Amino acid sequence: MPASKTLILVGTLLTFLASASAAEKSPSFSKADLAAAGQLRERALADATAYELISSLTTEVGPRSAGSSGDKAAVAWGLREMQRLGFANVRSMDVTVPHWVRGEAEFSVLAPWPQSMPTLALGGSVGTPAEGIEAEAVMVKDLDALKALPADAVRDRIVFFNNRMERTRDGSGYGRAVPVRTAGPSAAAALGAIGVVIRSISTSDERFPHTGAIRYAADVPRIPAVAISNPDADALARQFENGKSVRVRIRSSSRDLAPAPSANVIGEIPGTDLAGEIVILGAHLDSWDPGVGAIDDGAGVAIMMATAKLISGLDQKPRRTIRVVLFANEEFGTSGSRAYVEALQGDAARHVLGFEADFGAGPVWRLSSRVNSAQLPAVDQIFRALAPLKLARGGNEVSGGADLDGLAKLGMPLMSPDLDGTKYFDVHHTANDTLAKVDPVALRQAVAAFAATVWLGAQYPGEWERVQTVKPPRR
Amino acid sequence: MPASKTLILVGTLLTFLASASAAEKSPSFSKADLAAAGQLRERALADATAYELISSLTTEVGPRSAGSSGDKAAVAWGLREMQRLGFANVRSMDVTVPHWVRGEAEFSVLAPWPQSMPTLALGGSVGTPAEGIEAEAVMVKDLDALKALPADAVRDRIVFFNNRMERTRDGSGYGRAVPVRTAGPSAAAALGAIGVVIRSISTSDERFPHTGAIRYAADVPRIPAVAISNPDADALARQFENGKSVRVRIRSSSRDLAPAPSANVIGEIPGTDLAGEIVILGAHLDSWDPGVGAIDDGAGVAIMMATAKLISGLDQKPRRTIRVVLFANEEFGTSGSRAYVEALQGDAARHVLGFEADFGAGPVWRLSSRVNSAQLPAVDQIFRALAPLKLARGGNEVSGGADLDGLAKLGMPLMSPDLDGTKYFDVHHTANDTLAKVDPVALRQAVAAFAATVWLGAQYPGEWERVQTVKPPRR
Repeated sequence: MPASKTLILVGTLLTFLASASAAEKSPSFSKADLAAAGQLRERALADATAYELISSLTTEVGPRSAGSSGDKAAVAWGLREMQRLGFANVRSMDVTVPHWVRGEAEFSVLAPWPQSMPTLALGGSVGTPAEGIEAEAVMVKDLDALKALPADAVRDRIVFFNNRMERTRDGSGYGRAVPVRTAGPSAAAALGAIGVVIRSISTSDERFPHTGAIRYAADVPRIPAVAISNPDADALARQFENGKSVRVRIRSSSRDLAPAPSANVIGEIPGTDLAGEIVILGAHLDSWDPGVGAIDDGAGVAIMMATAKLISGLDQKPRRTIRVVLFANEEFGTSGSRAYVEALQGDAARHVLGFEADFGAGPVWRLSSRVNSAQLPAVDQIFRALAPLKLARGGNEVSGGADLDGLAKLGMPLMSPDLDGTKYFDVHHTANDTLAKVDPVALRQAVAAFAATVWLGAQYPGEWERVQTVKPPRR
Repeated sequence: MPASKTLILVGTLLTFLASASAAEKSPSFSKADLAAAGQLRERALADATAYELISSLTTEVGPRSAGSSGDKAAVAWGLREMQRLGFANVRSMDVTVPHWVRGEAEFSVLAPWPQSMPTLALGGSVGTPAEGIEAEAVMVKDLDALKALPADAVRDRIVFFNNRMERTRDGSGYGRAVPVRTAGPSAAAALGAIGVVIRSISTSDERFPHTGAIRYAADVPRIPAVAISNPDADALARQFENGKSVRVRIRSSSRDLAPAPSANVIGEIPGTDLAGEIVILGAHLDSWDPGVGAIDDGAGVAIMMATAKLISGLDQKPRRTIRVVLFANEEFGTSGSRAYVEALQGDAARHVLGFEADFGAGPVWRLSSRVNSAQLPAVDQIFRALAPLKLARGGNEVSGGADLDGLAKLGMPLMSPDLDGTKYFDVHHTANDTLAKVDPVALRQAVAAFAATVWLGAQYPGEWERVQTVKPPRR
């Protein structure tokens, strides 16, 4: 037997022994708790609460970007709805948010073939002079391609980042494509460019540009940046095909106003014997302004509120406290979650388990986690309790979403009923994010998965141990 | 046997005898012509001409509404491309077109829940004062529901027509839904309304409003009219659900300019022994301005030009002359086709057979016609020649599309390879009408069906007799 195979065998054996040992130490859920999980699952599949919440939020509030009048209306909506649903300790936590306003934006090709294309300023972009900026465009695929250009290739020019995002179920295509949006403007400015237009970080062929936040670097000029839709990026790329110079114009009146007041909205289902331990359910109340924020993140807000509501309707009360937090301004700097973590003042360890829903309206297709390995058997038990939902078993390396990242870095375990993101980036950050994009059946399934998982997380008879803050390697 | 059954039997017998008699009189296509039809079909299925034409037209010209700079560019494009493809007698025919400009439009709900919704002015709509018009909205389904309201129910109000178009393959849902757009503004104005907003004549849940022409009545005030998308119409309808007054605002800067010069673009594949007989292939060169007119009607333009090009590439030359006419301004009053008919001066009878493509980019799913019953056996022969395309056999009651309607009313027979319109009204008259909506495979199939049918129409060994101008009853 070759040495390498021996090592694998030994490794497998050790893994087996470790997990057998963990299973021995890990206490089992009570029959009553498992029965209640089944009850939650069944009730959720017949429950309209989540859909009604998204309908209400999108109809009565609509767009709610940080600092806007919609943002304030959303906070009032969240407090009112949590009270209506009977949550305890309903309150707001003041958060100061940046207040960027979009204004109007135009993107035009001037030569060789004049055309105007629907555009959106990227979030946080500086505006242009009223007459706009005009320059020759330089088309590159991505940041690596930009860096590979000769010196001065983009000086005084407008850079067109033209890389199409890949469609994936787990959203990994987004992570690979998004750096041109977040870092592209400053990368181009560092090379002397005066503006940026990106092919939207989008999987759709509908003609919607996608907005989303820029992260300007501190040490280079801030230059205007806009996005165009996939079909327009295709058309712009075709303008380059004949080898003539492509000249474009960007006009944008976006600008920063003074920071504004907003708030996290918090409500609870109080625990019983372990009331001091918090299972936190996070989603974000703000949305980008072009759409009405149905899937991003009305759906997450609704899934979490419906989950808590369903649990509060059980005869049994949860052991741990279930806390729903609707975070302020996730989209443009995660102001709400940062304020939440800052306010903890050493109290982070009370947050023993976290859930986040910020990836659309379902369905859930997989159960993943990031728990201390000693609690993996508990995750396995929960997974088995979800069997009728026919989920896949994910790994133990999820990262917190944007809003729970801070708590996760402080060692809080995470459980993740993974929402199916196959179509999420068709609509994400566009005017097309409306209630029509929510499938009520998929949404109910998602609530079922969350409700059963959250409930068992709150009932776990063992201890949710802290997680190493160093992310383990991918398996 | 009951009398009714006897009558049916006699009727069936007479029909059989009539068609048997017609079949005897109707000459058969030559083997060479049928072989060439098969060759055309096969070549078309492998030919990229049509797709390249749509790509070129949408990239190099883009939007081309009547009277715009794009309209002029489209005429130049048509002349250039017809020459490049080797057509004979390439020429333009001057046409004066109305010149309406869209300007900017806004639609907002002011109460109970303020929201702004993407909107488009309907084609030809008058604008509003700069500050817009504000009024209580009255929601009705359609024109019948409007007429059923009590007197003064809409006086000084804004009417919201809220009827969703039905999805059909043959486009019949459009005919049933569109009267609120064409006639709704004047119907509402006749009852004292000051403005109209319609649920777009649309089968899509993407957030695109659909424009399209109004026909103002002469005897009532012209009031502004705009369209909102299906998801926004859903949201607006929800605003009515709590019974509170719904207040809305319309702002639009649309206006009429002086009529402008445009042109029909014409090119031919000359006939041989029957060169004086014309088989006319019509499509329209203009498009509505929000999109780039890929499916409406870049596709029709391309299908007809590719058809003629493929026929010109055969060893055999056609007996009758094949004339491609790219009509000016179909969308806002069929100026081009009306000018074409006026210019005929009694020469209409030379147009012995007509084809029109103005229903998207394929595939073709059915072969219909409107020919003299004596030529139905010829249509049957053509249908059999198309067998590999697996089409359905349609009826003999097609109407001319908008552009061939005038010639059809003068008795010209029509043949119609029916384009599949199932998804057409998802995109029709929206900003989303881009090249991304063209499936190259379906488009090639459509060209195959048109090319073989046009060819056989041009080769028919009999006479294409005139058709009664009274439309026969539907069977």
